[in-house]
Amino acid sequence: MKQTSGKPLKVALLGCGVVGSQVIRLMREQSADLAARIGAPLELAGVAVRRLGRARDIDVDPALLTTDAEALVTRDDVDIVVEVIGGIEPARSLLLAAMNSGKSIVSANKALLAEDGATIHAAARENAVDLYFEAAVAGAIPLIRPLRESLAGDHVHRVLGIVNGTTNYILDKMDSSGASFSDALEEAQALGYAEADPTADVEGFDAAAKAAILAGIAFHSRVTAADVHREGITEITAADVASAKAMGYVIKLLAICARAEDGRSFGVRVHPAMIPRTHPLAGVREAYNAVFVEAGSAGQLMFYGAGAGGAPTASAVLGDIVAVGRNRLAGTRGPEESTYADLTVHPMGETVTRYHVSLDVADKPGVLARVADMFAKQDVSIQTVRQEGLGADAQLVLVTHRASDAALSATIESLRELDIVRDVVSVMRVEGEDAS
Amino acid sequence: MKQTSGKPLKVALLGCGVVGSQVIRLMREQSADLAARIGAPLELAGVAVRRLGRARDIDVDPALLTTDAEALVTRDDVDIVVEVIGGIEPARSLLLAAMNSGKSIVSANKALLAEDGATIHAAARENAVDLYFEAAVAGAIPLIRPLRESLAGDHVHRVLGIVNGTTNYILDKMDSSGASFSDALEEAQALGYAEADPTADVEGFDAAAKAAILAGIAFHSRVTAADVHREGITEITAADVASAKAMGYVIKLLAICARAEDGRSFGVRVHPAMIPRTHPLAGVREAYNAVFVEAGSAGQLMFYGAGAGGAPTASAVLGDIVAVGRNRLAGTRGPEESTYADLTVHPMGETVTRYHVSLDVADKPGVLARVADMFAKQDVSIQTVRQEGLGADAQLVLVTHRASDAALSATIESLRELDIVRDVVSVMRVEGEDAS
Repeated sequence: MKQTSGKPLKVALLGCGVVGSQVIRLMREQSADLAARIGAPLELAGVAVRRLGRARDIDVDPALLTTDAEALVTRDDVDIVVEVIGGIEPARSLLLAAMNSGKSIVSANKALLAEDGATIHAAARENAVDLYFEAAVAGAIPLIRPLRESLAGDHVHRVLGIVNGTTNYILDKMDSSGASFSDALEEAQALGYAEADPTADVEGFDAAAKAAILAGIAFHSRVTAADVHREGITEITAADVASAKAMGYVIKLLAICARAEDGRSFGVRVHPAMIPRTHPLAGVREAYNAVFVEAGSAGQLMFYGAGAGGAPTASAVLGDIVAVGRNRLAGTRGPEESTYADLTVHPMGETVTRYHVSLDVADKPGVLARVADMFAKQDVSIQTVRQEGLGADAQLVLVTHRASDAALSATIESLRELDIVRDVVSVMRVEGEDAS
Repeated sequence: MKQTSGKPLKVALLGCGVVGSQVIRLMREQSADLAARIGAPLELAGVAVRRLGRARDIDVDPALLTTDAEALVTRDDVDIVVEVIGGIEPARSLLLAAMNSGKSIVSANKALLAEDGATIHAAARENAVDLYFEAAVAGAIPLIRPLRESLAGDHVHRVLGIVNGTTNYILDKMDSSGASFSDALEEAQALGYAEADPTADVEGFDAAAKAAILAGIAFHSRVTAADVHREGITEITAADVASAKAMGYVIKLLAICARAEDGRSFGVRVHPAMIPRTHPLAGVREAYNAVFVEAGSAGQLMFYGAGAGGAPTASAVLGDIVAVGRNRLAGTRGPEESTYADLTVHPMGETVTRYHVSLDVADKPGVLARVADMFAKQDVSIQTVRQEGLGADAQLVLVTHRASDAALSATIESLRELDIVRDVVSVMRVEGEDAS
């Protein structure tokens, strides 16, 4: 074990909210362990906040608090800047100023990394400083490090992730109790799993930012949030959930990063999907997160844990602080952004998967033949079809073999024009099964 | 992205069996990717084998093969030594010779690290070289790196792992089909999941070596295989499995590393245990492995994947080669052994958990009172008791609250002496539930 040197590593903290206050608590409670693991003690150099007088979850020496974040991150004695304020600005300007002053960075900022990772990574490279961001995706679950280091000798084919706890809580509640989306959302809000304005979660924006970060690392290419096809869960009905259940499926909001079969492009998408109840992701309950990785040699891997919350996110931040601290003492750096593969992101239409389609149809002979014909015209092959209900309530439920999103969309459009189809009740992708 | 320098990193491979041949295959198939990720190409310098003429899973240039492993690992042009021969000797001598010659090490050798990790780690420290061993525990599952790096800022309370695929396959088969141990073992052997001599797996030796490695990392202390309390699965009967099932449990062979409540010691043990079917580890089927970690801030984490096999193990080895290669180019090293906490391993008797006890009892009034009295005398509190069968076939099934292993053992001994207890049919620990 390295001896602890006398000189402390000084940490500037940007933000003192739910995560920041937990970072301070852990730095205090585990100071001896952290010093032993890093090889030098950590010292809080200052905490940048918006308002000095605000009530906080933790007592902080007022002398450490400042509203001048810019001055703090460029202070000569600061070694490591920890950013937990989130959002694009002022986070980006502050991180750039910090890196230009030679500070190592630990950030939990998924939005910034997904929106403008190029600028942030370039600054880390140019200034030869560390940029660690384990906490940006799936909270406490070690994911960035395993993907960019442990799997560095493998070939990742696909990443399927439940990376948003709020939506997983809502969908799990709908699945277990039969609740409607709005009732489940209300309960999630009452329990603090969903915010008053749940848009970022339920519309998939949060998951899309994480998907962009994961795809970039998995495929060694640059990906931004704008590259991600995004659909939320607000239109999922209790009937959809029940129908999935009846067929042995469960509906999850998935972030999917998948290499095309030719290997030269990949797709990144966030949308609700049915997965078989036997799939390891199906057992991920409540607000937990999990990421399922399929790699050429490693096979199937899954990483599971708490995806959000002050303490879990702070755990990931502290792990990064230890790594960055060790690197700083050793005069070295961790792995930098890897985009050498430079693959392109293909449009959603080229995505190939299976589909579950429910149609309200007229109660007439020959309906199935005419519906099947619309699928055949787009070369979409039907795997199973069954009729639910009778007479005026008749529904056709079809599950297709693998087809492109473009072909499926064209099929749906042509079905809408058929007089015998009264309504396209739902269209949902089916994931997590072997190619068929 | 770093530019790839001209000079290749030379890799000496010790062993060319199931794993070694996959390492060679991946080094070939992914040479361009590996070079880009490391910053320099990898080159196979030589492969040490026991017999030159043997048929192999992969074609290797005969000029690269050698039986003189000692000469290979000390050759001036070799940078990295990859050891996949396993066992204590000659692996230990070869790794020491390699490190004394300044080579970085990647090893998959759980037996050596668990038996004599102190010597190996000391040599790495003294020679200031890397020693990476992700493949030694749970094959392709990134576990060593997350535990020693991602969770470096957290406080691990407990590690519960399914770390042996053979025994998980056998127990899963017994659970799903009602098969006996011997039938399930036979099937595992027929499918190649178990060896002709299955002792190392079914008696828990393999899992114990992995438990020692995991405990050492999780608790920053030195642990050897001799510190691990070990029980195998050979005495598990179809009746035990059925009884567990009836109560909503499943039996798994677990490697458990758990800190004592005072935090100053910990226990390391491998034994079959009942876990609730709702526990994330309960869903780990067939030969898969998974490790469940409970940490102070991160909460509950699980890592799941293939625990063995040539390609998955080679994936872990390649990930380590990339890390070691990057470090070598940067003139730095990864984290070294961390034993600063120096906690003691407490004896099995101090382990505190719950127990499931089945007794064959006489069909007389007052039996339960006398049995309960034996538990009370040892301060072991009973949570539930139920009678199965009637008359001469009557069985009492008891589940205790948390108690020490010593108290439970004393209870069982006193029960054996009771005339009304015809047989202590089974005693099994219950894990994976909250303290009660």
